Amino acid sequence: MRLPKGFLASGVRAGIRKKRPDLGLIVAPDGANAAAVFTKNRFQAAPVTLSKAALKNSGGKLKAVVVNAGCANAVTGKAGHDAAKRVRSRTAELLACSDEDVFIASTGVIGVVLPDKKVTATLPDAITRLSSGGIDALSHAILTTDVGPKVTQATFTLGGKRGRIVGVAKGAGMIHPNMATMLGFVMTDAALDPATLKRALTIAVDQSFNAISVDGDTSTNDTVLLMASGKLGNTARADIADFQRALNTVCRDLAWMIVRDGEGATRVMELTVRGAKTDRDAKLAAHAVATSPLVKTALHGGDPNWGRMLAALGRSGARFNVKRVSLFAANVPLVTNGEPAIYKEKDAAKVFTRERVPITLDLGGGNATTVVLASDLGHDYISINADYRS
Amino acid sequence: MRLPKGFLASGVRAGIRKKRPDLGLIVAPDGANAAAVFTKNRFQAAPVTLSKAALKNSGGKLKAVVVNAGCANAVTGKAGHDAAKRVRSRTAELLACSDEDVFIASTGVIGVVLPDKKVTATLPDAITRLSSGGIDALSHAILTTDVGPKVTQATFTLGGKRGRIVGVAKGAGMIHPNMATMLGFVMTDAALDPATLKRALTIAVDQSFNAISVDGDTSTNDTVLLMASGKLGNTARADIADFQRALNTVCRDLAWMIVRDGEGATRVMELTVRGAKTDRDAKLAAHAVATSPLVKTALHGGDPNWGRMLAALGRSGARFNVKRVSLFAANVPLVTNGEPAIYKEKDAAKVFTRERVPITLDLGGGNATTVVLASDLGHDYISINADYRS
Repeated sequence: MRLPKGFLASGVRAGIRKKRPDLGLIVAPDGANAAAVFTKNRFQAAPVTLSKAALKNSGGKLKAVVVNAGCANAVTGKAGHDAAKRVRSRTAELLACSDEDVFIASTGVIGVVLPDKKVTATLPDAITRLSSGGIDALSHAILTTDVGPKVTQATFTLGGKRGRIVGVAKGAGMIHPNMATMLGFVMTDAALDPATLKRALTIAVDQSFNAISVDGDTSTNDTVLLMASGKLGNTARADIADFQRALNTVCRDLAWMIVRDGEGATRVMELTVRGAKTDRDAKLAAHAVATSPLVKTALHGGDPNWGRMLAALGRSGARFNVKRVSLFAANVPLVTNGEPAIYKEKDAAKVFTRERVPITLDLGGGNATTVVLASDLGHDYISINADYRS
Repeated sequence: MRLPKGFLASGVRAGIRKKRPDLGLIVAPDGANAAAVFTKNRFQAAPVTLSKAALKNSGGKLKAVVVNAGCANAVTGKAGHDAAKRVRSRTAELLACSDEDVFIASTGVIGVVLPDKKVTATLPDAITRLSSGGIDALSHAILTTDVGPKVTQATFTLGGKRGRIVGVAKGAGMIHPNMATMLGFVMTDAALDPATLKRALTIAVDQSFNAISVDGDTSTNDTVLLMASGKLGNTARADIADFQRALNTVCRDLAWMIVRDGEGATRVMELTVRGAKTDRDAKLAAHAVATSPLVKTALHGGDPNWGRMLAALGRSGARFNVKRVSLFAANVPLVTNGEPAIYKEKDAAKVFTRERVPITLDLGGGNATTVVLASDLGHDYISINADYRS
């Protein structure tokens, strides 16, 4: 896939991980406007604190993104902070820009200081390999336990011109409730100011990445960065709605790929909670059901065990009347007004063995709605996570 | 094991489960004072609502307990309620007592109405088999996915007399965060009034069953019942402290057995959170760490992956200063004041491969402390739960 105009990328091997590419570089030779959302975790990795401050100080401008896999450089104190700064300075030096024009991101094991010499020694190679088709190499270089790369694109019309958005991401972890680092980099050729980008990104993230992580369930390094090179040369902003639509699509596609590629995932539950009194009630309910290991294992087994879903709802803290709760698997009613519905077990089982399992939980008490995606919990998740790091 | 004076028990097969005993009966021929704690789940099973009301109406008196496995009779509406009442009435009829003297409890699949005819048809057999040694048969008849029965005892001195407490329980599920039904029945020969029993039980449960389930993480049927036959004939209550100690021991023993027997569990983490600003902060922190699938899988793998613990702490909502957080595995420091400690990996790994893994998380900001027990997350959990019900 080709990047939008104004961006180059590459992916190389710095030797942080064994035998796999682990260093990605994105460069906007003429600069880009940018906006980002970061993890809300109290433990924020060195690259997160540094990049957050840099983006603020530069007023939402950047020239390059350096991202490594294999080491999160989180909970590493001053040593980690210094290592991240050395990577940033060396990149700025090589690209002849200021330190604050360089955005850095890391993913991998927590508690290990970034081996910055491996990174700085490899940077010249990464720069040499920069190309407008380099997104594919980069998409591989940022992976950790992901099964495969995640890249998507969309087009939009802005000020009468046809523009492009390309996004790349890495997951994964079980996402819910304790996701491994999620990184997303989204590039567009649109000419939009940083404040507009921030508004658009916040809207898109809320219905994509946040719908898989749910407020507050974040790792130490989660970052989604949106960059706009302005090469499209649009001036009018009358049809920003179409750009927003395209951005939403790209973010949702990436979120879906992340959940579908959840560690060992075989299927994804798309849980819609509706009829909640407030947004908070909807989210509490969705979170409890989507994170329940008993629900996730039933999903893995293709078992429409709705009792586990209601038990999770019952302890969620959401306000609702138990006699007004209904539950559906696709269009098969499982529970109606708090009592078991009459349905054929095989109809429900058929829905639960799909790759995408649509579940609707109606609390029957209001108008608030939320949607979350959750992967199932299977043997591969255990194998991946009991052995990871060692 | 023999029951305390004043109690008889039996365990038989009613045919609710395939090929396994599934009906337990406890009788206090001369009656008993009683107190109970119930699930806080919004969906409360029919036996829970019925028994809660009965105990209240009788002023804390009962004569019998009927408990079945294989069917939780939860989320079953009026049909479930009526089925539970029929079991209760028939028991009362056979034992010549009032309906409200009969306490009922159920565990098993949610959403299926109790097959009450199977129960009532088997009650005469259960009555015939009642004996003071019947606790062992009962301990088997109340199990669901538990590997084995859970029975323990302790002695105490009250009013100068030596009394006994015998407790029996069933788990299990992963307990955290979405426990399968937990039932506990504790019997003593002490002569204590219902209000005293309630106070003592609340104290004991808080540091045992609640330390494994954490507030609010409850199934539809959880129940712990304490019964006192009064056969010890004690009058003075000056040394209630010794009774409390014995009761705490019995409840803690049962809680440990439940966690150790968590579905597929191979080891148990005993997590102490200390230095928290408030009790709530301590519990939020403990809950997030103890329920994290990433922490649980690392525990399964014997991997001292403390980064996952801090990431869970960071999203827990507990208030703390990241620079004052310390973490220990037994006496091995893993993190000191928010930075990686210097330790030998093999020393940490040795702690993580014990059957009981003591972890201390010091938030360095106050005096509140809490302790939770959490089982690991392994392949057997997946096998048990992906296939359960089918």
